[in-house]
Amino acid sequence: MPAAYRSFRCSVPWLILSLEAAFIVLFYFLFSDVGAGIHYAALQDVSHVLVFGFGFFLMFLKRYSFSSVGFNLLIIVLGVQCSILMENVPVLLSDRTLEGSLSSIVQAAMSMVAVVISIGAVLGMINPMQSIVMTIVEIIVFCMSRWINENILEVSYHVSMMHVHLFGAYFGLAVSSRFSEPSPRSDKNASTSQSDLLAMLGTLFLWVFWPSFNSILALEKNKAILNTCLALAVSAVTAFALSGLTTKDGKFRMSHIHRAAMAGGVTIGYAASSINYPWIAMILGLLASVISILGSFCLQSCFNPPLKIHDASGVHFTFGLPAVLGALAQVVFFVMEIQTTLPSIGYQVILNIGAFCFTISTALIAGLITGLILNLKLLKPTPVSKYFDDQMYWEFPHLAVGF
Amino acid sequence: MPAAYRSFRCSVPWLILSLEAAFIVLFYFLFSDVGAGIHYAALQDVSHVLVFGFGFFLMFLKRYSFSSVGFNLLIIVLGVQCSILMENVPVLLSDRTLEGSLSSIVQAAMSMVAVVISIGAVLGMINPMQSIVMTIVEIIVFCMSRWINENILEVSYHVSMMHVHLFGAYFGLAVSSRFSEPSPRSDKNASTSQSDLLAMLGTLFLWVFWPSFNSILALEKNKAILNTCLALAVSAVTAFALSGLTTKDGKFRMSHIHRAAMAGGVTIGYAASSINYPWIAMILGLLASVISILGSFCLQSCFNPPLKIHDASGVHFTFGLPAVLGALAQVVFFVMEIQTTLPSIGYQVILNIGAFCFTISTALIAGLITGLILNLKLLKPTPVSKYFDDQMYWEFPHLAVGF
Amino acid sequence: MPAAYRSFRCSVPWLILSLEAAFIVLFYFLFSDVGAGIHYAALQDVSHVLVFGFGFFLMFLKRYSFSSVGFNLLIIVLGVQCSILMENVPVLLSDRTLEGSLSSIVQAAMSMVAVVISIGAVLGMINPMQSIVMTIVEIIVFCMSRWINENILEVSYHVSMMHVHLFGAYFGLAVSSRFSEPSPRSDKNASTSQSDLLAMLGTLFLWVFWPSFNSILALEKNKAILNTCLALAVSAVTAFALSGLTTKDGKFRMSHIHRAAMAGGVTIGYAASSINYPWIAMILGLLASVISILGSFCLQSCFNPPLKIHDASGVHFTFGLPAVLGALAQVVFFVMEIQTTLPSIGYQVILNIGAFCFTISTALIAGLITGLILNLKLLKPTPVSKYFDDQMYWEFPHLAVGF
Repeated sequence: MPAAYRSFRCSVPWLILSLEAAFIVLFYFLFSDVGAGIHYAALQDVSHVLVFGFGFFLMFLKRYSFSSVGFNLLIIVLGVQCSILMENVPVLLSDRTLEGSLSSIVQAAMSMVAVVISIGAVLGMINPMQSIVMTIVEIIVFCMSRWINENILEVSYHVSMMHVHLFGAYFGLAVSSRFSEPSPRSDKNASTSQSDLLAMLGTLFLWVFWPSFNSILALEKNKAILNTCLALAVSAVTAFALSGLTTKDGKFRMSHIHRAAMAGGVTIGYAASSINYPWIAMILGLLASVISILGSFCLQSCFNPPLKIHDASGVHFTFGLPAVLGALAQVVFFVMEIQTTLPSIGYQVILNIGAFCFTISTALIAGLITGLILNLKLLKPTPVSKYFDDQMYWEFPHLAVGF
Repeated sequence: MPAAYRSFRCSVPWLILSLEAAFIVLFYFLFSDVGAGIHYAALQDVSHVLVFGFGFFLMFLKRYSFSSVGFNLLIIVLGVQCSILMENVPVLLSDRTLEGSLSSIVQAAMSMVAVVISIGAVLGMINPMQSIVMTIVEIIVFCMSRWINENILEVSYHVSMMHVHLFGAYFGLAVSSRFSEPSPRSDKNASTSQSDLLAMLGTLFLWVFWPSFNSILALEKNKAILNTCLALAVSAVTAFALSGLTTKDGKFRMSHIHRAAMAGGVTIGYAASSINYPWIAMILGLLASVISILGSFCLQSCFNPPLKIHDASGVHFTFGLPAVLGALAQVVFFVMEIQTTLPSIGYQVILNIGAFCFTISTALIAGLITGLILNLKLLKPTPVSKYFDDQMYWEFPHLAVGF
Repeated sequence: MPAAYRSFRCSVPWLILSLEAAFIVLFYFLFSDVGAGIHYAALQDVSHVLVFGFGFFLMFLKRYSFSSVGFNLLIIVLGVQCSILMENVPVLLSDRTLEGSLSSIVQAAMSMVAVVISIGAVLGMINPMQSIVMTIVEIIVFCMSRWINENILEVSYHVSMMHVHLFGAYFGLAVSSRFSEPSPRSDKNASTSQSDLLAMLGTLFLWVFWPSFNSILALEKNKAILNTCLALAVSAVTAFALSGLTTKDGKFRMSHIHRAAMAGGVTIGYAASSINYPWIAMILGLLASVISILGSFCLQSCFNPPLKIHDASGVHFTFGLPAVLGALAQVVFFVMEIQTTLPSIGYQVILNIGAFCFTISTALIAGLITGLILNLKLLKPTPVSKYFDDQMYWEFPHLAVGF
């Protein structure tokens, strides 16, 4: 279908260029100065998480590695600019002048984690044009959801940002339910040892830099780092144990390790800076890993088929379920901590649970609507037979010689 | 032998889970609070060394890459928890309350280098169950050896930690002497260009982060970093020169570069913060590289065969010999420095040499005993024909399609 | 031609060893003390750029990956030592005692970027002996050129260092014009998906660490980082858009992304710390990417063939043209800034343009002369049929089994 190939030429580049032009114009009008800030180490850590971590983590499909790492970069650079603008809308509305600062880039980059997780759910099924539209929509909705969380539901800044996993996972799942399922006989939807190793490189980047991610906005950084380290450690240990228990021969499965090793980091995110005893962090890490591996069984056999969800990289059990666990745990800790000090406990708990429910339902509704938009003919959805294939989007001059 | 496969299912996961449960219980009873500490940069550097550096450095075997990087992670996360507990035993015995702090994680992670080096000596020959038992035993012995070094032999904290390479290498060698040699006709015990490149990635991570490792506990950090950088540079240069001189056609051999490039960092570890002239660091780097490449010839032809040692990743000449050189050099520097100031020089020198001999003999004896334990039927030793093979331990769903 | 192979054995190792001996002797006489300095984070960032970034960025040739990453390391470690000595010649001449310090290593490592870029232009066409000679010559000329820039043309320290891309690219091009062109029918001068992915890893390292590189010597670090981040982001976005527009089917080409994504960082280098409005940095990033991708077409079809230049890794449009753009932009900013304050504007502008012309002409002349030297019979130039081939320089024991 050469016609379909050629047509991208008239759409994707112009979409990208006009978006970029719009961003430059907006930056021109909005940012009058470059401000100070000492967040460079934080920025580098978040870049590592986004560019290396997710870029390589999503590289497990054998014929989709160029797209995984390439489009990941494209989406991050577009999304971060959009996110910087969105982060500053409240400042703008209050009639102050804006300063472009490193800390706003750091926060923008952290919000991008939601988009990257969502992309994981539909990995290989959406084309670059759809990815870009999805990125812009999701970033806008997520920033609005965070604003409501912070200003109406009185959630702290750190916790509202930690909803990023929850939002990303459920938004992605809702989008993916609007896409046709890939043919089960397709051999493209699989990994090779080589692609699994590169995905392991990405997982290790995520694993090593997760404590940074959880501590950037935390009030007590050291506590957050220590608790995240312990949760990640226990989570990785449990991943090996459960992987050995759940496979046929007692062998380990690489994809279990990829996913469950990080579950602890996701779960501990909410409460990392308020947990006072290391063993609590360890227990949370263990539970996160259990929920992630058991979840992968239940979801893939009972939940996804009836709902026609094809969760390409398992974001539901890698990020979604552990984030739900973390949010619930945070409410429990909150109750236990406040119990002794405040009488108005009920109101606070309701606010916390409200923020959780609000975030998850916003993600689901916005995801469903986005899924419908992405399937418009205008965006040229990829036919099912072309899923998971780099050759739709990338030139392979070295292959041309071979053919 | 499907029976043997299945049997892991009833052992490894339960071993892992019960260990983890024991750790959580111990953490519950021991750590009453989360303390402060500003060692996050140090912790990240050590994580890079352990997770990326050693994980990929050991990935040179063509059919053992999943196990190299996967079990490396498993061993690190289990070992670090055990090591944190061991580090705090002296504090416990003195009846103080414990604080979990980042600096104790950093030290625990540094001790883990010993285990990772030892695993290198028996890479591909031990199964996960044996690895775990070996990790626990080695960490306990190493912590005890460090405690004796510091408290009885009056060795400084930094130097006692730098014995980590010496201890790891000789412990690993002693263990490996208790294992059957792999069949020389086996083609699994080899590398491919691909696996050599991934091992190079690991080597570069070790090379770039070695100055951090040597300076974390040093008193004069900047001096330690500068000297380590120079020693590493000269070491890498010498590695190329000697590799060209010792191969048949004057070509370079990748494994020489992998190993000799780091030898300078190992050697300079002991004295990095006390060397005042850059040229001394450079000479040490040069000697380390020479001893590593010449050692690889002598050991592989004269020393290993009669002792029936199969040193899978050459830890003897990569870490063992350079560490011996470094320990001797440190004694010499100590003598030269003290000569002019103190009369009681003899006593100090004897203590230093004593610490060196004590560490090496503890490593050898503990290693031999561990080697005997690991060969118990209970731990299901891997048959020689299954050495160096990922398929013993990992599912390969993508291969299943191919068959 | 086994004779030619064997002969390297009598030359390369001895050249390396005698150079190293000379360096050690010079360090012995020159550096009397180890000084202080707090540049470790900067040093690590530059190491990442050099060792991981360029090491893997140059790995796109399918049969030259060992040499790309291996010789890159060799050249860096030799060149940094030479560069430390050269950096300190002015101090020496002024009869002060020298202190080896981390900051001098950082600057030496930054100068090495020129060499690594030049090597890119002749990648696969020069043997190790030629590389070493070229490294030494280039580092000496570049340090002299910087000294003249700073002391005679009154250019600031930061800007004189940012000429590193300009100098490296044009020096490399001049050298490559003295080499025979590779046979167009050779299939070795190509990439595979695997090598493109590894090159992408290198590109991402360069991309993530570029803000560090641009800010190390800048006066206003935060501004430099922020502007570089924005320029890099826009540059990457534009790279995707233009890649889609310029290929036949509207598909993306990996090599466009590799090169254009970094162009913004090169261009913004000069003025990063003096740009006050984010949108200016974004426009510069966009222009850099445009000039890089359009340049790659014009140069490869119109410019290189008549001049017989074979620019192996496209350093002309990756580093050369963006650096020219950046230097011009910096003059414009300078004029606009000074316009309102100083009357003697003409003199300052002439100095700035003079520094640019001086650097580029020094690079071209020195490059041509070096190119002639490198083709001396003494240095055993590689025959055209052996271009781009690891097997000339590396042992492949695993291949030996295969044959």
